[in-house]
Amino acid sequence: MANTIITLGREFGSGGRMIGKVVAEELGFTFYDKEIITKAAEASGMDKELLEKNDENIKGSIFHNFTLGLYNAANTFAEMSDISLNDRAFLIQSDIIKDIAKRENAVIVGRCADYVLRDFHNCFNVFIFAPIESRIERAANEYGMNRKNLKETITKMDRRRSSYYNYYTGKKWGKAISYHMSLDSGKLGIEKCVKIIKEMVKEV
Amino acid sequence: MANTIITLGREFGSGGRMIGKVVAEELGFTFYDKEIITKAAEASGMDKELLEKNDENIKGSIFHNFTLGLYNAANTFAEMSDISLNDRAFLIQSDIIKDIAKRENAVIVGRCADYVLRDFHNCFNVFIFAPIESRIERAANEYGMNRKNLKETITKMDRRRSSYYNYYTGKKWGKAISYHMSLDSGKLGIEKCVKIIKEMVKEV
Repeated sequence: MANTIITLGREFGSGGRMIGKVVAEELGFTFYDKEIITKAAEASGMDKELLEKNDENIKGSIFHNFTLGLYNAANTFAEMSDISLNDRAFLIQSDIIKDIAKRENAVIVGRCADYVLRDFHNCFNVFIFAPIESRIERAANEYGMNRKNLKETITKMDRRRSSYYNYYTGKKWGKAISYHMSLDSGKLGIEKCVKIIKEMVKEV
Repeated sequence: MANTIITLGREFGSGGRMIGKVVAEELGFTFYDKEIITKAAEASGMDKELLEKNDENIKGSIFHNFTLGLYNAANTFAEMSDISLNDRAFLIQSDIIKDIAKRENAVIVGRCADYVLRDFHNCFNVFIFAPIESRIERAANEYGMNRKNLKETITKMDRRRSSYYNYYTGKKWGKAISYHMSLDSGKLGIEKCVKIIKEMVKEV
């Protein structure tokens, strides 16, 4: 039986990360978010801080098509050279994500894992979102962010994730058909979202 | 305790109607799809065939804003006059949908019921979609449609539903944030979608 992978796209402040963490704990899956960055730094020898700075950010990836062409031909990052930092980071992370899917059951947050694992049969792609008011409250109360200009900050983070996703996947971030399931955590609540995702991956 | 309403938007051939029907049966809810048209004809005295022909179709609704303004002022269709057939059909159906929500637990397919019941707290809005290949198979095998040009027919039906929805709701058909939950019935299967929707409306 193949491992089960749940990928989680999320609007900023929707609680997607927390939902993923609880799902992973309750199912006994490994949880990956920033952990992918740590693994990518270890595997590639690239600077972890540099990778963090470029996390889910496409700025500077002007050689995208050329790069992915090279990657598909070369098949591993190690065989490549001369590509932008963002593309390198994306490709290293892609290798890490594919490796995780081969080794264990996991919940993977962000980083286009749905696209990276598009040919992996037992992969379920989820998108979590919420009304802006509920995201402002979560960002202020749970992430401890300053309320000043918080709506603008959240919108900017969404735009960044969206650009990154659309750029690397050729799909549309936030469009229902880009995922297998989308959930409004503002309406349904964190606990209910967890139950629904667990129901989704349960054997029939 | 307020009644529970589940509204179902759906891509053509995704099995959304069937999912709604099974959910309604298993929960003991009333199921409404074309039944809304019958009720609308009875309530308004309008010709049922004419209503069916204009079902989820915006063709000719050029007085939209003016019409909805009148409706909000008048509050019931009966107090209005001089509006397009499509807008009349929409408004009569809206009255029927609001009346259903007051009276009983129900699953309501299409007809912008999510928008009509936007102020109704205990209403859950679901969107069902599937990859085009799986929708072609369903349309051919289960609806008995001719395979010739079936992809074009399905795309046309989607476009019609999308235009109708976007026009009357001001939201985007098929965008995750337009609903509380979106499900890929091609990936998950009909039975699993039914279970997930039942989990969604279950008391925590």
